[in-house]
Amino acid sequence: MTLNVLGYAAQSARDALAPYRFVRRDPRPDDVVIHILYCGVCHSDLHTVRNDWGFSTYPIVPGHEIIGRMISVGPDVTRFKPGDHVGVGCMVDSCRHCAACEQGLEQYCEEIPTYTYGGIDRHDRMPTFGGYSEKIVVSDKFVLKIPDGLDLKGGAPLLCAGITTWSPLRHWKVGKGSKVAVIGLGGLGHMALKLAKALGAHVTLFTRSSGKEKDARRLGADNVVLSTDKGQMAAVKGRFELIIDTVPYAHDLNPYMPSLTLNGTLVLVGFLGGLEPVLNTVPMIMGRKSVAGSVIGGIPETQELLDFCGKHGITSDVEVIMIQDINEAYERMLKSDVKYRFVIDMASLKDR
Amino acid sequence: MTLNVLGYAAQSARDALAPYRFVRRDPRPDDVVIHILYCGVCHSDLHTVRNDWGFSTYPIVPGHEIIGRMISVGPDVTRFKPGDHVGVGCMVDSCRHCAACEQGLEQYCEEIPTYTYGGIDRHDRMPTFGGYSEKIVVSDKFVLKIPDGLDLKGGAPLLCAGITTWSPLRHWKVGKGSKVAVIGLGGLGHMALKLAKALGAHVTLFTRSSGKEKDARRLGADNVVLSTDKGQMAAVKGRFELIIDTVPYAHDLNPYMPSLTLNGTLVLVGFLGGLEPVLNTVPMIMGRKSVAGSVIGGIPETQELLDFCGKHGITSDVEVIMIQDINEAYERMLKSDVKYRFVIDMASLKDR
Repeated sequence: MTLNVLGYAAQSARDALAPYRFVRRDPRPDDVVIHILYCGVCHSDLHTVRNDWGFSTYPIVPGHEIIGRMISVGPDVTRFKPGDHVGVGCMVDSCRHCAACEQGLEQYCEEIPTYTYGGIDRHDRMPTFGGYSEKIVVSDKFVLKIPDGLDLKGGAPLLCAGITTWSPLRHWKVGKGSKVAVIGLGGLGHMALKLAKALGAHVTLFTRSSGKEKDARRLGADNVVLSTDKGQMAAVKGRFELIIDTVPYAHDLNPYMPSLTLNGTLVLVGFLGGLEPVLNTVPMIMGRKSVAGSVIGGIPETQELLDFCGKHGITSDVEVIMIQDINEAYERMLKSDVKYRFVIDMASLKDR
Repeated sequence: MTLNVLGYAAQSARDALAPYRFVRRDPRPDDVVIHILYCGVCHSDLHTVRNDWGFSTYPIVPGHEIIGRMISVGPDVTRFKPGDHVGVGCMVDSCRHCAACEQGLEQYCEEIPTYTYGGIDRHDRMPTFGGYSEKIVVSDKFVLKIPDGLDLKGGAPLLCAGITTWSPLRHWKVGKGSKVAVIGLGGLGHMALKLAKALGAHVTLFTRSSGKEKDARRLGADNVVLSTDKGQMAAVKGRFELIIDTVPYAHDLNPYMPSLTLNGTLVLVGFLGGLEPVLNTVPMIMGRKSVAGSVIGGIPETQELLDFCGKHGITSDVEVIMIQDINEAYERMLKSDVKYRFVIDMASLKDR
């Protein structure tokens, strides 16, 4: 069975995304085939399409916030049946035997996970293509169950924006009464506010623009601190056990370090690169504070997040677009002109 | 009772240390008076004397690795009696009521601990003077018991070099089978090797000079890695749960980050300042790794360390000097020409 699939692809770093027909790999006995209903639009889709990180290979079919309906399951698959609503995030496979994989932390696979797009399948060496397409073939181990009642459109961004903030919240044991801050209010930041609040934390948003206060409070912030205001920054000295820094570009961490408690951690989830301006060690040493990093989350914790969101009725605030509008959506995303995540209605693929 | 004391002081950043007579504060009911037998020589003594950090006030009598014999105790003191062997480290007081102090983490006192020298007593506003002197007056809460049988000369550096490495080893739960690395083999580094080994860890030294291997192994290293050798660095990829970085000047952390395990931490204990060259976040994010800081240790954990060292026969490798040789010792320390800590025999104060 050869799966001919229609999607949207970039053929080079300078090309807009455009319709592209390609072949999905032949399903293996533990694979499932998913009809894609919605796909969230992540900043890393744009970075990869434009080769901002320098390792893109073309053509690229982006998309790793995938929600769909199961079409068929292989003979070894017992967890799913046709018709199930399912999700696929940033990974479609991993080595499955290293220490990280054995702990369900496939995102830290020592042999590097197979990413949902722009990767190479570790069995048949076929390139992987993402969710801006009709269908996807995935090993059942990397497929998530979507709880009944979860809105499918708003649920799609949980697969990346959601899990990227959920994983550090859980790893650093945020719970009732925890003092948490979030830097930046975008796709990741708005999920961090919602999730931290639902976990029972007292949540603060650090932002550079005073206009975001009302929205931040609606999303779960108990407090909003203008990071450009020295008085407001001084008022939160020693306050936060965990700061989730969602800012996707190089920025100065030094103003935030004093706001951590003793043993507090600032965890970077959005920026890959050099920490400029340089980090001063004094607040770290004089308060046993840490700067850490975290990337997406493992499959078990992604399922945990989806179940949590199903139970608490949490989804992403999304603007649904047609696939034909994806290039314009990228331009708007660059201007932070989205509240707070674009999600493509993949039914639009047929509207040509 | 006014305590006239002879010590060695610097009168300005450009002066050598020279004999200096000064008055100790009047003992309070919870104070003890200690006759100083030995005082270790710490890099921060030198930094403070020369005003390298910009906040020194003169005259300065340095010294915060103090071992002595109890002369007298105030009426409220029950833990000590005259004749006891006791120690004093970097702190002589703190606020005693903040969250840090209540946890026995006085080094992180929210109102800043009173440092053993160069500080101001929080009750009578007298300047504090350190251990390069005959006697010291200290609140009994900040006095440590020296276990029977612990060598007093080699025990002195436990009060700073020892606790500075012990505290992170304990905080990050190093024990049997832990994989620990130490960067730098000086006063702090040689204690880190001994203590990590005694805690049951598998210990690696990172060093830039191949000549240190034999000594490192004698001190407890199971493995020595030349940090300038790319092949040796690649061979320890993903190896260490904790790296204790004792280097006292700005240096590149990036080569060490890949050698941390998933969830591993590199903890800075020796360098106050800007992290140059800039730290790249990629290994942190792709392995949930942390860079942290830690300073000395609290009073309860310092007592724990001394008791542990008493039980395991651990002391610092020291070169005992006379106080008259202190200025020469500073010059040698700047050239790392000491194995591994100078300790002043304070009896030499009388040899004028």
